[in-house]
Amino acid sequence: MYEGPIQDLIEELGRLPGVGPKSAQRIAFHLLTVERADAERLSGAITAVKERVRFCVRCYNVSEHEECRICRDARRDPAVVCVVQEPRDVLAIERTSEFRGLYHVLGGAISPIDGVGPEKLRIKELMARLGAEGITEIVLATNPNIEGEATASYLGRALKAVSSPEQPLRISRIASGLPVGGDLEYADEVTLGRAFAGRAEV
Amino acid sequence: MYEGPIQDLIEELGRLPGVGPKSAQRIAFHLLTVERADAERLSGAITAVKERVRFCVRCYNVSEHEECRICRDARRDPAVVCVVQEPRDVLAIERTSEFRGLYHVLGGAISPIDGVGPEKLRIKELMARLGAEGITEIVLATNPNIEGEATASYLGRALKAVSSPEQPLRISRIASGLPVGGDLEYADEVTLGRAFAGRAEV
Repeated sequence: MYEGPIQDLIEELGRLPGVGPKSAQRIAFHLLTVERADAERLSGAITAVKERVRFCVRCYNVSEHEECRICRDARRDPAVVCVVQEPRDVLAIERTSEFRGLYHVLGGAISPIDGVGPEKLRIKELMARLGAEGITEIVLATNPNIEGEATASYLGRALKAVSSPEQPLRISRIASGLPVGGDLEYADEVTLGRAFAGRAEV
Repeated sequence: MYEGPIQDLIEELGRLPGVGPKSAQRIAFHLLTVERADAERLSGAITAVKERVRFCVRCYNVSEHEECRICRDARRDPAVVCVVQEPRDVLAIERTSEFRGLYHVLGGAISPIDGVGPEKLRIKELMARLGAEGITEIVLATNPNIEGEATASYLGRALKAVSSPEQPLRISRIASGLPVGGDLEYADEVTLGRAFAGRAEV
C-alpha cells in the first residue's frame, strides 16, 4: 500500500470501467511524473464535464445547451425518432449518415438481473413526445443483445398500443447485419448503415 | 466527434498510459453518469497527488514528508541500500519482506534509444550518500531487462571504483529467478523474495 494521496488516486482510478489495479497504479505514477499543467488539464476536464454537460430536455442526448445540437437542427425530420440506449449510440448512428430524424435516449435497457425495469428508462418521456411532437415513425435501435432485444420488444408492444388508424405509427427495428450479442457502439459504419437501411417493420 | 467538454475529457483520458480511444470514451461517459461527488473525488485525488506528494530528499521515493516513511523508520538498517528504478519498485520489494535496509530510487534506467544517459539518473545523489551515510552494502535491483541490466552494470563499475580496502563496499545484483525481459513490478512476492535472498556479489 502506498501512502495517502497516491493510494487515494489509485483507488479512485480503479473504480473506472476497464481500469484494473495494475493500470490504476501505472496511471497514478504517470500523473505523478507529468507536468502539473497536464494533470490539471485532466482534473479540469473531469470537472468541466460535470459542470457544463447536461442532458437534452427533449431527447436526453448529452448537450451543452438546453436542447442538443441534433434537436436544434432545423434540417432534421422531427417526425422520425430513433430510440437508443445511450448517448454514445447517437454518435455511432450519426457516423453512418443514414438517419436524418431525431433521437430518444432511454438511458439503458431493460435488465431484470441488474434491477432495471421499464420504469427506470425514459419510456414515459418517449410516450409524451409521440403526441406532442407529431411523431409518425419510430426506429428501435437498442443493442442487438438480450437486454436490447427485450427493450425493443417491450417498446414495440407499448408503441403499437398507442398507434391508431387515425394516427398510425410506423415502428421498425434496425436490421440484423450487426453481429448478435455485440455492442452497437463497436459496429463499423458500413454494417450499422446497412442495418439502418434494411430495418424491418415490427 | 463529441461536443466541447466531453471531447476534451476523452482526449485527456486518451493521453494516459494504457488508455486507448475506446476506453477513453467509455470512461468519459462513465464519469458523465456517476454522481458528481464521485467525479469530484477523482479530480480531487489528481490535484492532491500533484499538490501533496513529493520525492523523499534522501532516497527519492514518493513521500508526503521531507523524508519518506522508510527513511524515517529507525528500525531499518541505513548501511544497506537497495537501488531501484522507480518508486513502484520500492513497493514491490517491500511486499517481499526480505529487505530491511533503505532504498535509492534512480528515476529510470540507462536507455540510449530514449536519450537517457547516466547523467539523467540520480547516480550523483547515490554517490553522495555513500560517504555521508556510511553505506557498506548496495543491492542493485533494477529491472532484469536490457536497460535495467545496463544500469546495474554501469553502477557496479562506478561503485567498485569508490570501494577501498579501508572502506569496502559490498555490491550485489538481485538474482535471476525473475523471468528475464520482464518488469520487476509484475513479479510475484515469492519469486522476487528468492531473487533477493539469492543475490550474487558483482
